[in-house]
Amino acid sequence: MSNEQTVAELGEFALIEQIAKQLGSGNSPFVEVGVGDDSAVVSAAGGRVVACLDVLSEGVHFRRDWSAAHDIGRKAAAQNLADICAMAARPTALLVGLTLPPETPVAWVLELANGLREEAAALGVSVVGGDLAAGSAINIAVTALGELDGGAPVLRSGAQVGDVVAVTGKLGYSAAGLHLLSRGFRSPRILVAAHRVPEPPYQAAISATFAHAMIDVSDGLVADLAHIARASQVDIDLNMANYAIDQPLADAAAAFNGDAMNWILTGGEDHAFVATFAPDQVPEEWQVIGKVQAGQGQVLVSGENYSGSGWVHFRA
Amino acid sequence: MSNEQTVAELGEFALIEQIAKQLGSGNSPFVEVGVGDDSAVVSAAGGRVVACLDVLSEGVHFRRDWSAAHDIGRKAAAQNLADICAMAARPTALLVGLTLPPETPVAWVLELANGLREEAAALGVSVVGGDLAAGSAINIAVTALGELDGGAPVLRSGAQVGDVVAVTGKLGYSAAGLHLLSRGFRSPRILVAAHRVPEPPYQAAISATFAHAMIDVSDGLVADLAHIARASQVDIDLNMANYAIDQPLADAAAAFNGDAMNWILTGGEDHAFVATFAPDQVPEEWQVIGKVQAGQGQVLVSGENYSGSGWVHFRA
Repeated sequence: MSNEQTVAELGEFALIEQIAKQLGSGNSPFVEVGVGDDSAVVSAAGGRVVACLDVLSEGVHFRRDWSAAHDIGRKAAAQNLADICAMAARPTALLVGLTLPPETPVAWVLELANGLREEAAALGVSVVGGDLAAGSAINIAVTALGELDGGAPVLRSGAQVGDVVAVTGKLGYSAAGLHLLSRGFRSPRILVAAHRVPEPPYQAAISATFAHAMIDVSDGLVADLAHIARASQVDIDLNMANYAIDQPLADAAAAFNGDAMNWILTGGEDHAFVATFAPDQVPEEWQVIGKVQAGQGQVLVSGENYSGSGWVHFRA
Repeated sequence: MSNEQTVAELGEFALIEQIAKQLGSGNSPFVEVGVGDDSAVVSAAGGRVVACLDVLSEGVHFRRDWSAAHDIGRKAAAQNLADICAMAARPTALLVGLTLPPETPVAWVLELANGLREEAAALGVSVVGGDLAAGSAINIAVTALGELDGGAPVLRSGAQVGDVVAVTGKLGYSAAGLHLLSRGFRSPRILVAAHRVPEPPYQAAISATFAHAMIDVSDGLVADLAHIARASQVDIDLNMANYAIDQPLADAAAAFNGDAMNWILTGGEDHAFVATFAPDQVPEEWQVIGKVQAGQGQVLVSGENYSGSGWVHFRA
């Protein structure tokens, strides 16, 4: 195989075969029937399945000149695995729908598959099926499945007045990385890398079965907490005075004319997890950043409305 | 709302709200948590879930000047529901990832959602989640979930020497309809309608739990049977001498310079089901069209290789 070969030159069925080889035989304990039939069959302990579907499109969610295919594959897997974990469920499988222009290099597609496989494998999960289609732009649709094993899912609607709000994982790194990339910089590496590949603290979310409400931070901390506040019919008041701004964020903000706290409050795509807990039940790896109080679905920062905002599609 | 309003004018969150309203509250008996959280929670009787993901991209799978949004939505749902049924499983839920250019009319998107909802509702299924993203082309990714309720899935790999091959559902109609549309015709309506919206005989497949192997005809009868032949390591010999060519197909072939038997053997997208059964176990609504014999994975028509072929992506 030449690195320059395109998917049109290779053809659909040969490409599927090479992708399937790249994805591995799927030796995940969750899989009964994997790639190669009309559908996959995956375990769903407790008799119910948790499922989500997220889409990445070129030019909007990723740029091939900013991110390698392997990173894009990892990110596509990570954002879906995070959505399963945000229910306090355990991911069991991924399905992937790839839309590719005919001139897409085969090597790029196989590296993408490799990234998907690696990110999922860290959780014992494999790609069990999907679809390959021609189209005018690269589009990556990923479905993640998960199981609850008898427990109840942690929803957005469960926050209770008197809860504390706590977060685990990085905040603002991905936004800072995007800020740098969009200004032509490729460093500091820790921030650019965080934009290219998030590192959600999956296990902390899977284990938080006793959280009252949980969400993964994909649109931005304030925006995503607003989903919890509205679904739970409460207000959330954040107090960031004790939140230590990590040095890379502070340095980048100073050097590149950014606002570190704005990245933390509005930056999405780090896929940190934010949850509400009874005050005496906050696990060790979570940091308290606020409280739940009576209200109508507002998120406040130190008692005030926050004027920044997170990511919204189709905004001019 | 004006009919001319675009998704960019309406904005992401308002559009999601309108789509969710269009999809209905999801009063499906299978749904525990529907649209509105990080993931959905759906029943999976028997402790395992059946799952598939198919993608439709504009210009390849559909054209907005040939098909109304409602039809495209129905087709997107149907092809995924058919993949679940082809395992002899019962569909339980859909997830939908929509990629939309900013100038897409809101009315078009809502009609698409309406079509998805209607096709799924016929099986008691609802849309439980998904994603909305901006992109340069319309792309529709659909995941269907299903349950087996303790039974074994019917795979492609189960065909046995001595089985008969039987089909249920229309063959060749969608291909004939595409032939007409691509030549500028919009009639006969029965063929054009079949291309726009397939009508898979879902229940016949769900009930065929005792079939030895099954697949839905999406790439073409010969091409899809080749998947069964290869997975089962057998040959399949079709005898179409007694297969009655429906009058609309015969008429269209005569009038528009087509080959009705070629449409039947190679036309995909009708989502008929083809299966192999023990000779004394063929259900009433299935028609025998061939037999399974010892071999290496070939599909023959009256003992000969068939030179036509089905749909392949990326082919020049």
